[in-house]
Amino acid sequence: MTQTTTDVPASPSDLPVVRLKPKSDARAIRFGAPWVYAEDLVTDRRTKALGAGSLAILEDADRKPLGLVGVTPDSQIIARMLDRDVTATIDQAWFEARLQTAFEHRERMFDAPFYRLIHAEADGLPGVIIDRFGDIAVVQPNAAWADARISQLSAALQSVTGVNCVIKNASGRARGLEGLDDVSEVLAGTAPDAPLEVPMNGAIYLADVMGGQKTGLFFDQRPNHAVAARLSKGARVLDVFSHVGGFGLAALAAGAQSATCVDGAQPALDLAQGGADAMGMGDKLRTRKGDAFAVLEALNEEGAKFDVVVCDPPAFAPSKKSLDRGLRAYERVAKLAAPLVAEGGYLVLCSCSHAADVHKFARSSARGIGRAGRRAQHIHTGFAGPDHPLMPQLSESGYLKALFYRLLP
Amino acid sequence: MTQTTTDVPASPSDLPVVRLKPKSDARAIRFGAPWVYAEDLVTDRRTKALGAGSLAILEDADRKPLGLVGVTPDSQIIARMLDRDVTATIDQAWFEARLQTAFEHRERMFDAPFYRLIHAEADGLPGVIIDRFGDIAVVQPNAAWADARISQLSAALQSVTGVNCVIKNASGRARGLEGLDDVSEVLAGTAPDAPLEVPMNGAIYLADVMGGQKTGLFFDQRPNHAVAARLSKGARVLDVFSHVGGFGLAALAAGAQSATCVDGAQPALDLAQGGADAMGMGDKLRTRKGDAFAVLEALNEEGAKFDVVVCDPPAFAPSKKSLDRGLRAYERVAKLAAPLVAEGGYLVLCSCSHAADVHKFARSSARGIGRAGRRAQHIHTGFAGPDHPLMPQLSESGYLKALFYRLLP
Repeated sequence: MTQTTTDVPASPSDLPVVRLKPKSDARAIRFGAPWVYAEDLVTDRRTKALGAGSLAILEDADRKPLGLVGVTPDSQIIARMLDRDVTATIDQAWFEARLQTAFEHRERMFDAPFYRLIHAEADGLPGVIIDRFGDIAVVQPNAAWADARISQLSAALQSVTGVNCVIKNASGRARGLEGLDDVSEVLAGTAPDAPLEVPMNGAIYLADVMGGQKTGLFFDQRPNHAVAARLSKGARVLDVFSHVGGFGLAALAAGAQSATCVDGAQPALDLAQGGADAMGMGDKLRTRKGDAFAVLEALNEEGAKFDVVVCDPPAFAPSKKSLDRGLRAYERVAKLAAPLVAEGGYLVLCSCSHAADVHKFARSSARGIGRAGRRAQHIHTGFAGPDHPLMPQLSESGYLKALFYRLLP
Repeated sequence: MTQTTTDVPASPSDLPVVRLKPKSDARAIRFGAPWVYAEDLVTDRRTKALGAGSLAILEDADRKPLGLVGVTPDSQIIARMLDRDVTATIDQAWFEARLQTAFEHRERMFDAPFYRLIHAEADGLPGVIIDRFGDIAVVQPNAAWADARISQLSAALQSVTGVNCVIKNASGRARGLEGLDDVSEVLAGTAPDAPLEVPMNGAIYLADVMGGQKTGLFFDQRPNHAVAARLSKGARVLDVFSHVGGFGLAALAAGAQSATCVDGAQPALDLAQGGADAMGMGDKLRTRKGDAFAVLEALNEEGAKFDVVVCDPPAFAPSKKSLDRGLRAYERVAKLAAPLVAEGGYLVLCSCSHAADVHKFARSSARGIGRAGRRAQHIHTGFAGPDHPLMPQLSESGYLKALFYRLLP
């Protein structure tokens, strides 16, 4: 259960102190690491007694202050760095400054106010995800320190961006580790009662922001959608693991002849169809509900050919433990998808697995294409868009990779 | 000295046979490796006697044919795979088929006929580079098999693309390893007597296609120019190791307030200025000739600030041997460049070192930024454009990487 601190910020001098163990790596923290693990912190009775989401001053073993942290005593990530300045006050103005910095970057990068505004640690708000859909913002406060200050965050969000509706999405799995509940709520304004229209890359997507991940929208693939769309003019496009039609609808917007979306979830396919309808291209979209591997096998048996095939599966290798099995699954996707690509056509293979870095994923993909008896060129590698920044020292952990191949005659 | 074979293709049955040694890795060749090293081939007297650039049938140790290869007996890369079909005839029509495949991809990717048309092995023409500048093509036949067939290649090039001028550029360093001379020549049409205007990303670049690398043009950075340009609206831009102004002119085209190009070569800076003049933006470009490290240090002493800083140095780590020293040089570039970036501005760091993969390069860059006392977000990673395809099994060797950071307040 959540123990929340008061919403009134403590003045720095009132703050408790938490301290690194002598053998822990204070240098990593000093050089920018955002998390302190429980095993690295002296967890005496006083620290244990702190409420989840409390603020504290983090010190190294020599009692030198490292910064202001948010503490969750029962979490493996026991402290998150909020500010290197130990005199900082975590109030609405503090949230506004962080949001303003993030906001300016997004406004520069995108023509319309639809983007991920806050991507957690790299945007200076540890554990917090905020997606913006025009006048609506969806906040995922997945760390106790932020959940405890959600009303300040919501007010700051409205003041910086001008959104008039703020929705708290509490469905994130990380919340459980922080002892947080899963109760979503509308924090400001009136929640939409229908899926939102989201413009990206010339397409229109429908996002059910109240319906959670299965029917929400991911902004991370935007640049990869754009590259694939460029390849798709006049093309027959197959979008496997399509979700709400990310690649398929961008391809239609770019002049594809047709797009076939394959997904296991009917609600997602219905939103894809709704998006195509909103674009006036409903007749060019086909949907096929089913297990992606089964559909790929069936299409192979049918002898189907497409000019562009995209596979954007769920994370097959979310952890190191699942890496080998995951890489075999990616190889299998490549092997099943490659024969469906017409000569001179394109194959786009995506991975959102943290554990499979871009080189490992590329090796598996190349092997799968080779085992399908196809020769290929690797023409492009894409990652998540610039509204999904990473901490520089952790940038290898960039989870999303998209490999673009041309399959040769 | 070049020993050329006749331009008349041998019929397959006439071709000599070269054979892999029993312990060599025939599987790698079978799965797509494009090269045979001298140590893996049985080099008997007959093979040694083949003229540089001869065709031969490559067999594995069990006398199973693997493909048609071009042989350079005195080169470390003794054979290059030309066609898996041993009955292929390497004539003008064969070149046309390869060029057509490459051409269709470029025409799909680019709005104007300015691109790398052939990127060697990955485009099916081992050792051959072809850049297209509108009606002009510049060919680098850096392998003996291609040099011996340059007139067929030139004819095919004109017929597929419609270019009316073909220039052979023989300045590539690889030619020496193949026993080829360094004599460039005009193979067809009339060479331009002034630098060409090349449109990319809304900018105009001047390329001296007769003047070699120092004043030619590289297409590889095109997508990275585009991302940096997006960041540069209204910005003061510093383009270090600017060559003919790749990043600087794209930034001006996108609305930069000013661009300062730094390079050691005055002819390159003159072409950058000429490009800015051709864009009607000559007054917004500044050039500064000098050693880049010295200029970076001087700018730091001057307390200069820019909104966007780009560093695109030559390969500091071209080989494994030079890797450690090279990575230290990249770290130094990052450390010198980061303080020049205004708060909330952007830093773009490039590497064209084969030996430094993207993770190693990113680690050095992050360290340099950290040592400069700056906090950053990693917002984008780019590679060479889609007219620089890679063989899938060798795609880790992608030499060009561009890391985009935002430096936080």
